Amino acid sequence: MRRPIVTLTTDFGVSSPYVAELKAVLLAAQPELNLVDLTHAIPARSIRAAEVALRSAAFTFPIGTVHLVVVDPGVGTTRRPIAVAARGLIFVGPDNGVLGRALLEPGARAVVLDRKALWREPLSSTFHGRDLFAPVAAELACGLALEDVGSAIADPIPSTLPVVERGPGRVRGEVLAADDFGNLTSNIPAAEVDRGWRVTVGGSAATWCRTYGDAERGPLLCLAGSDGYLEIAIAEGSAAARLGATAGLPLVCERSERG
Amino acid sequence: MRRPIVTLTTDFGVSSPYVAELKAVLLAAQPELNLVDLTHAIPARSIRAAEVALRSAAFTFPIGTVHLVVVDPGVGTTRRPIAVAARGLIFVGPDNGVLGRALLEPGARAVVLDRKALWREPLSSTFHGRDLFAPVAAELACGLALEDVGSAIADPIPSTLPVVERGPGRVRGEVLAADDFGNLTSNIPAAEVDRGWRVTVGGSAATWCRTYGDAERGPLLCLAGSDGYLEIAIAEGSAAARLGATAGLPLVCERSERG
Amino acid sequence: MRRPIVTLTTDFGVSSPYVAELKAVLLAAQPELNLVDLTHAIPARSIRAAEVALRSAAFTFPIGTVHLVVVDPGVGTTRRPIAVAARGLIFVGPDNGVLGRALLEPGARAVVLDRKALWREPLSSTFHGRDLFAPVAAELACGLALEDVGSAIADPIPSTLPVVERGPGRVRGEVLAADDFGNLTSNIPAAEVDRGWRVTVGGSAATWCRTYGDAERGPLLCLAGSDGYLEIAIAEGSAAARLGATAGLPLVCERSERG
Repeated sequence: MRRPIVTLTTDFGVSSPYVAELKAVLLAAQPELNLVDLTHAIPARSIRAAEVALRSAAFTFPIGTVHLVVVDPGVGTTRRPIAVAARGLIFVGPDNGVLGRALLEPGARAVVLDRKALWREPLSSTFHGRDLFAPVAAELACGLALEDVGSAIADPIPSTLPVVERGPGRVRGEVLAADDFGNLTSNIPAAEVDRGWRVTVGGSAATWCRTYGDAERGPLLCLAGSDGYLEIAIAEGSAAARLGATAGLPLVCERSERG
Repeated sequence: MRRPIVTLTTDFGVSSPYVAELKAVLLAAQPELNLVDLTHAIPARSIRAAEVALRSAAFTFPIGTVHLVVVDPGVGTTRRPIAVAARGLIFVGPDNGVLGRALLEPGARAVVLDRKALWREPLSSTFHGRDLFAPVAAELACGLALEDVGSAIADPIPSTLPVVERGPGRVRGEVLAADDFGNLTSNIPAAEVDRGWRVTVGGSAATWCRTYGDAERGPLLCLAGSDGYLEIAIAEGSAAARLGATAGLPLVCERSERG
Repeated sequence: MRRPIVTLTTDFGVSSPYVAELKAVLLAAQPELNLVDLTHAIPARSIRAAEVALRSAAFTFPIGTVHLVVVDPGVGTTRRPIAVAARGLIFVGPDNGVLGRALLEPGARAVVLDRKALWREPLSSTFHGRDLFAPVAAELACGLALEDVGSAIADPIPSTLPVVERGPGRVRGEVLAADDFGNLTSNIPAAEVDRGWRVTVGGSAATWCRTYGDAERGPLLCLAGSDGYLEIAIAEGSAAARLGATAGLPLVCERSERG
């Protein structure tokens, strides 16, 4: 691939100089990289929020993209550094569940990063993003194979996202996160439900719509989100503000008798 | 142009993964693009704020730059997707007034984006930034002409910015926005007034200065802003905080008798 | 150097269109530049905060990198625009102490930027970042020598960071800043102290640890930070929130009798 892409997902905070340090290491290894910030607004140590961010955006990137993920509360401890190949993409980060979404893909493979010759010296105890993950991500973007940077493992820590419960004519999931508009994304695949289902979020009924702009202002809306999951919104308003909560709110879909 | 520039202006929020999705589509189309964030801090659905941001920064970019603007409350409805060519630059976004500043340029031309073969499939109902505007912006940056991506229209929605009122020895405008220093920009061209004019903002008198650093601390200042419009500031302070308001505050300039 | 790097450090605010204007000027001069945001979250006019941000990240970048620093409360006054070469890097910004960290490097050289032919015309009074510093930074990144852009000076304004006080078995410094995790960095080089020293911050004792993940939750921790300075932290918490203060808090290290 010409000008390979490396994306960056961290909990360092928007505009943190730590992000610049990751980029310094990546560009020192390969000045032709295309660096893209996926997000740095993950709440500190929130593995689940990082997984949600990756879920929505990672698979929009072209084959060969390397996703560098540094949400790493266990930095410097015995938690393993890993890389995962899935659907033509590569994910690099700590083995704490943050790469769990990638591991769900059919054919996903994982390695523990154990080629110390690729790392930055001296290895700090508190910033493996800069000293270990970024140098390995650069090598992977430049063409090293997964096997060149680590040894296969069979037991990476799986996704920590909540699992959808399915019964006859019933799907029960939950709200995972809010975006900056206050729209709420969930863990229910949009393909599993449609206008023939009644949807309630935190006990309140939501009305089906196709997009925000042609919906009535006021009621809670549900629609197929652009990430492929059921979404809760309010036209020209914030569902997150209305419901006073985001992650964890139960989302229940029931096939209506008329449906 | 070598390495064409595409800028991004959205209301997605700073560090939103949606911005990364726009970049994924742009770089998948053309890895040599130079992507520049213009701003993603536009308040949700604020067409006017986006127009102000573009007014200040868009024309600093070199000829050939494509400005991708996704402030799109009507996404998925009948609002038209458009592109505008003005002063050697190209603007891509929804037909809701957000490209109004570009349309004011002499010789500006507009097309409705109707070449569906250029779009991403399937087209979502809620994210035309990713599925329609970004792919078209990439093609325009790579050399397609305006006529290659759409059909000419004569009636794009004009600027929503307030118009300046001019009378003999009097110019009346208003504050449009505050920057992060609390400096206020307006719609009054700096070239129309000078130290021979008395300036009041929200009824309070402002004192002329050339730059912040050589002005007295305390009083409201007025000066020619770096964007070419009359600016209100406070030396080492925030005019926005002092005046307790930003957009909409009346700004009146009257030629003084001594002037 | 292929694709030279220019970093940007400003107090313009995260996602400010002013940052985009800097990038417009840099890319217009040289489309092959690699632009990296170091941070734009410096508090307005805080020279010291900018120096701390640069201290941690600037020297991670490869030789040849140009660091463009625009924290410039004296813009348009008689303060000098300067450039500093230090340890293979180049720093460009106002002569107000913001480049003080670079000036501490052995062999650092400074010039006043006085080659007006390199600047943008007309020069504004309030945005030398765009009109003077960015064009000069682009030229330096493309290979101009320090002597090509200015005249040597011997008296640039030095670092404004507080100096560490050292006595027998005692080092007294202070907290300089908090990162987004609430970890506190200081001016005490980590190499000067170790587990044989008692550390107090703002009068509270801190416990030595190697990294966050293997430390007890609750107590104040001290450790060698990834930037090479003594750091104060709380495992899975915020030391900044706990101590209710950040910059200026005294940090005292005393060699313990057992040490």
